[in-house]
Amino acid sequence: MAGSTFGTIFKITTWGESHGEGIGVVVDGCPAGLSITQEYIQSYLDRRKPGQTPYSTPRKEEDKVIILSGIFQGKTTGTPISLLIKNTSQHSQDYTELASCYRPGHADYTFDKKYGFRDYRGGGRSSGRETIGRVAAGAIACRLLEDLNISVTAYTKSIGPVTASSFSFEEIKNNPLYMPDKEAAETASHYLDICKEEKNSAGGIIECIVHGLPAGLGDPVFEKLDANLGKAILSIGAVKGFEIGLGMEVAHATGLTNNDAFLVNDNNEIEKATNYSGGVLGGISDGSDLILRAAVKPTPSIASPQQTITIQGEPVCLSVHGRHDPVIVPRAVVVVESMTALVIADALLLNMTSRLDYLHKIY
Amino acid sequence: MAGSTFGTIFKITTWGESHGEGIGVVVDGCPAGLSITQEYIQSYLDRRKPGQTPYSTPRKEEDKVIILSGIFQGKTTGTPISLLIKNTSQHSQDYTELASCYRPGHADYTFDKKYGFRDYRGGGRSSGRETIGRVAAGAIACRLLEDLNISVTAYTKSIGPVTASSFSFEEIKNNPLYMPDKEAAETASHYLDICKEEKNSAGGIIECIVHGLPAGLGDPVFEKLDANLGKAILSIGAVKGFEIGLGMEVAHATGLTNNDAFLVNDNNEIEKATNYSGGVLGGISDGSDLILRAAVKPTPSIASPQQTITIQGEPVCLSVHGRHDPVIVPRAVVVVESMTALVIADALLLNMTSRLDYLHKIY
Amino acid sequence: MAGSTFGTIFKITTWGESHGEGIGVVVDGCPAGLSITQEYIQSYLDRRKPGQTPYSTPRKEEDKVIILSGIFQGKTTGTPISLLIKNTSQHSQDYTELASCYRPGHADYTFDKKYGFRDYRGGGRSSGRETIGRVAAGAIACRLLEDLNISVTAYTKSIGPVTASSFSFEEIKNNPLYMPDKEAAETASHYLDICKEEKNSAGGIIECIVHGLPAGLGDPVFEKLDANLGKAILSIGAVKGFEIGLGMEVAHATGLTNNDAFLVNDNNEIEKATNYSGGVLGGISDGSDLILRAAVKPTPSIASPQQTITIQGEPVCLSVHGRHDPVIVPRAVVVVESMTALVIADALLLNMTSRLDYLHKIY
Amino acid sequence: MAGSTFGTIFKITTWGESHGEGIGVVVDGCPAGLSITQEYIQSYLDRRKPGQTPYSTPRKEEDKVIILSGIFQGKTTGTPISLLIKNTSQHSQDYTELASCYRPGHADYTFDKKYGFRDYRGGGRSSGRETIGRVAAGAIACRLLEDLNISVTAYTKSIGPVTASSFSFEEIKNNPLYMPDKEAAETASHYLDICKEEKNSAGGIIECIVHGLPAGLGDPVFEKLDANLGKAILSIGAVKGFEIGLGMEVAHATGLTNNDAFLVNDNNEIEKATNYSGGVLGGISDGSDLILRAAVKPTPSIASPQQTITIQGEPVCLSVHGRHDPVIVPRAVVVVESMTALVIADALLLNMTSRLDYLHKIY
Repeated sequence: MAGSTFGTIFKITTWGESHGEGIGVVVDGCPAGLSITQEYIQSYLDRRKPGQTPYSTPRKEEDKVIILSGIFQGKTTGTPISLLIKNTSQHSQDYTELASCYRPGHADYTFDKKYGFRDYRGGGRSSGRETIGRVAAGAIACRLLEDLNISVTAYTKSIGPVTASSFSFEEIKNNPLYMPDKEAAETASHYLDICKEEKNSAGGIIECIVHGLPAGLGDPVFEKLDANLGKAILSIGAVKGFEIGLGMEVAHATGLTNNDAFLVNDNNEIEKATNYSGGVLGGISDGSDLILRAAVKPTPSIASPQQTITIQGEPVCLSVHGRHDPVIVPRAVVVVESMTALVIADALLLNMTSRLDYLHKIY
Repeated sequence: MAGSTFGTIFKITTWGESHGEGIGVVVDGCPAGLSITQEYIQSYLDRRKPGQTPYSTPRKEEDKVIILSGIFQGKTTGTPISLLIKNTSQHSQDYTELASCYRPGHADYTFDKKYGFRDYRGGGRSSGRETIGRVAAGAIACRLLEDLNISVTAYTKSIGPVTASSFSFEEIKNNPLYMPDKEAAETASHYLDICKEEKNSAGGIIECIVHGLPAGLGDPVFEKLDANLGKAILSIGAVKGFEIGLGMEVAHATGLTNNDAFLVNDNNEIEKATNYSGGVLGGISDGSDLILRAAVKPTPSIASPQQTITIQGEPVCLSVHGRHDPVIVPRAVVVVESMTALVIADALLLNMTSRLDYLHKIY
Repeated sequence: MAGSTFGTIFKITTWGESHGEGIGVVVDGCPAGLSITQEYIQSYLDRRKPGQTPYSTPRKEEDKVIILSGIFQGKTTGTPISLLIKNTSQHSQDYTELASCYRPGHADYTFDKKYGFRDYRGGGRSSGRETIGRVAAGAIACRLLEDLNISVTAYTKSIGPVTASSFSFEEIKNNPLYMPDKEAAETASHYLDICKEEKNSAGGIIECIVHGLPAGLGDPVFEKLDANLGKAILSIGAVKGFEIGLGMEVAHATGLTNNDAFLVNDNNEIEKATNYSGGVLGGISDGSDLILRAAVKPTPSIASPQQTITIQGEPVCLSVHGRHDPVIVPRAVVVVESMTALVIADALLLNMTSRLDYLHKIY
Repeated sequence: MAGSTFGTIFKITTWGESHGEGIGVVVDGCPAGLSITQEYIQSYLDRRKPGQTPYSTPRKEEDKVIILSGIFQGKTTGTPISLLIKNTSQHSQDYTELASCYRPGHADYTFDKKYGFRDYRGGGRSSGRETIGRVAAGAIACRLLEDLNISVTAYTKSIGPVTASSFSFEEIKNNPLYMPDKEAAETASHYLDICKEEKNSAGGIIECIVHGLPAGLGDPVFEKLDANLGKAILSIGAVKGFEIGLGMEVAHATGLTNNDAFLVNDNNEIEKATNYSGGVLGGISDGSDLILRAAVKPTPSIASPQQTITIQGEPVCLSVHGRHDPVIVPRAVVVVESMTALVIADALLLNMTSRLDYLHKIY
């Protein structure tokens, strides 16, 4: 188990290296009868495509999705949906350096220790391109949620020292950093210009909100909704921290300030007065907005010289040249959205089996 | 799948409610031939037992573990190890209030929404007693790691505003808050006294260090070691944030400050100059200490009056009386240690199958 | 993974050895709201209890089931149901022989090869008592199916050379061999008397019919309903062959004789004119009766002297004395029924997630 | 979960319909460092290719395998191996009949009942072409077993009334029916000629022998080696019966005739005097040859007129024209071999985690 499958019912299996033939994903367990088009999936892939902004790599990557199976007459058939994205910008680059030494902050060393050798071309399986399969699958999950009036929205909360302080849903897609605050986006852009000049890179925070989620999703104990979201988000390369609701801040809160009071609103629906819990209680969705955050580390590939060793253990000074984003955050926004949607879709399907009265609705 | 099974090879299944007959766990997939005693497992359970400190509940819970299967002549046989801990301090309390209204910060509401009804006695399956099974199983995982010279050590990093600023491994077991800093432990004690007086509660942070881990554990993509640790820790009730290495702070770091340089030490071993990555690169252990943190929310059961509703949706003012710790953190320390050990044990077993040369060592 | 967990959604984990503290099972994923009693589960266990007939072992095994969790106010809560059956007839027997040599037809040798040693008391984990957990869990699955008007009925089709030639549903529970044909049961009894006298044992065939199954259960490809039934039945010790519908006989059939014609009956329902397929087409239930068969080998423990070796590899002549049934079949009938019910219950739950319109019925 | 993933550690996920873009498989969990070529995989696919014999369909299917990922410098990297086989012989056939009525013996009806509609082109996901992914993955599993000196050999045991009575390993690949008995192969050929003339079809039996298997593979209880083999084989479309060792015949055996005596051979190795158990005891391999059999039903597509109904439930008389083999058996031989190899590979990997002393060999 090289760990390329995710999910229990809505299950995806990704494959592909940075510089192999292509990248792909098989989505198994998507319910039959869901309308979906190639264009819909492509629109998600386009959001993670480089070359969108001055801060993302200028490589020309087409990343066109091809649907190989599982969709017939515009609808999912219930059988596996295989999606292929060919690697088109491969070139016979000189990989001598990558092959012979360990880049700091990368998985070169750990791959060698685990497998005895590695596909050193462009990071191989640990390349950022690995997320293409996640996003293609995530688009299908999002389409399913859309059908149930559930929306998943991720955005850049902060880049380096710059944090969004206002929230405009519309603004998110207006600026290349996917920030909900136009001014913050501009300040962050300047900060990234400086990083680039200094041959340095920046980290940041991605936030994701799920709206319209029914109460009852997630299972007690090990399959808590937030635990599965945590795994999903932490499985994205470069993510080093995960928060739900108030997150790490609960450490400084007290019971009086952290408990969300229950009330009944004017529409006679049960609500919480606040949402410090981030939409989950005891691992089960409570019907409020689900709110999570991921901390993304600075791009480890930087042009500044760094100390490292060769695979033979000789010290060497390495400057990672080439086309590297000074920040991973904006391109990872759609990846966070995708992984979140995949977890929610799976939880929706699993929850259908939780009550006898649900069985009676179907049988 | 009510989600009570955890792990791929080293697999545990827990069961039991707060006020049912007992709590238990079945550990399947522990390698045959491991020496283990009832006393060893009991020593882990004793660490989560209440009544150890003035800040934990004074209930008398025996929590004596009984080994029902899987161990013969002092060694694991390779077959499932069933462990039972009887619920001895049940009493015919009046559960009218618990049954009829939703406690803020608890899972009462979400259980009702998920299952249509709930076992309202003492929190049922979402009670803190659910962690007993995790700890009993975690003790076995720790015993396995010990046999391979891997140690797992969790401790209280902070309680409310009080953070440990020094680190003494010995001190951890000397103070009832499991802090590695004696002075901080005393200050935190005073803080908890105030919380108790004010009918309030506090949160905090638990840190866990794994030492002696070989490089190569964890899989790329979805089964990253840190992703599985994240799920494991976030599946503990009350945990709202998870960090590995620098954690959320990477958002403010830069590539120059965050990358760990590789070097060769005096023993001719590969090391990292720093360990901001927390012992994991690309989801695979790098041989450095693994460092993770969990943020634990304040005990939601507080004696102060809180606004909430009945199950019929009528507003009601609730004060949760009874024996409740003003802080969950100290008793959760051994739970974090247990969940960490379970993930590591599973990763060790899974990694055995990653290379053809490993097969040739056995077949 | 010592392989003690079965099922995807309706998931059971069994544990326990022949001569340990007890035998048990944890049932996770049973939908909430199902009415069930201790007596109901006990009635299934009583059917596999020895001492029912002159051909089953005269040991006094109480096999009383204790419900430890997961049921509240007579209904399943959706959380794990833990069932315990204590081993009461243990005695400090002399196990020297069992410990020191390999019984032909038993798993003594393979356990030693796999694990390096074994719990040699009464067969340990490979004892027939291991099926107690399956039956206790199977009773719950049967209760769920009953609620949906699906019945599962297993019976003895043949013992040695004696095959049932008539079918009376009522007769099955009237004779101690669980045969649907009274005369055949009597003839088989005489045959077993002879086996016993000759210190020999007999095999036989168990058939199982599932009635009332909706069409659509099971998944194409690897999770075919018949494939999962096959695994379930072949996982019962002593089963060496599995058939669905016409079974092995299809090898001699032709397309013209084997294809079942579709027709519309007087109630305007789609039916098949015949049922050679045994209720499954392409791995998916077709709404006809599901029919399967298991071939059970003769009891390997026989009082006749047999050639074998000691664990040191010395030749030795062994007569297995003690209380051994001359035939396993009758006691395995309820085990086949249980495993069948567990597979069907799981397939029913999984199938709920197969269509978008089913989601709309619940969300 | 549409059930397209198989295996625990050595895990495959297949996808693709008969008349979609292609068929494929992702193999995850193959150990790193295994030498393998495109030609090796192709040689397995060629064995299931139609047009090899007068009794298999004369369609021109190229079925060329393309390796998309997971192999670098001729060796597996430990990351997922994605294999693609394009569908080249699609043509804009008239599918009106297939779309509008239910073919007897096919999955048309059950797919409609399960999913609400179906991809009716050429059988869709339940087409025999689905097995292409299994064989491509099976080739990799066979390569792994080969490296450990384990051989898997399947062959045609019988076709209709004609059973192989002699065994020549060499002969298997000499005749187009893959029978180990030249004369029987000729007689079977004549029988098939008659079937074809009569617009009818034949069933048969495939046998598979695994040689060189170490003792100790498989787990007690649910993950018995034979149970997993049973599932694997029964998941092949058209298989209706499965046997291990003596199989269904154990029903007529007695303990005295069925038990295999243990002995020590001249090389001082433990052996069994006979092998009625088929190489498995208590679900664990015993070091003898593993022997299994599968009963394959007659091709359901026959040119003779058959009674059936339209999807609206109107009676209709259907003759299935087109290119259909009069027997499935010969082309399924390599599929049985592949599924067997996949189960064995997985069992080999899982068994590495069964003993503490194995851990000490690696860590």
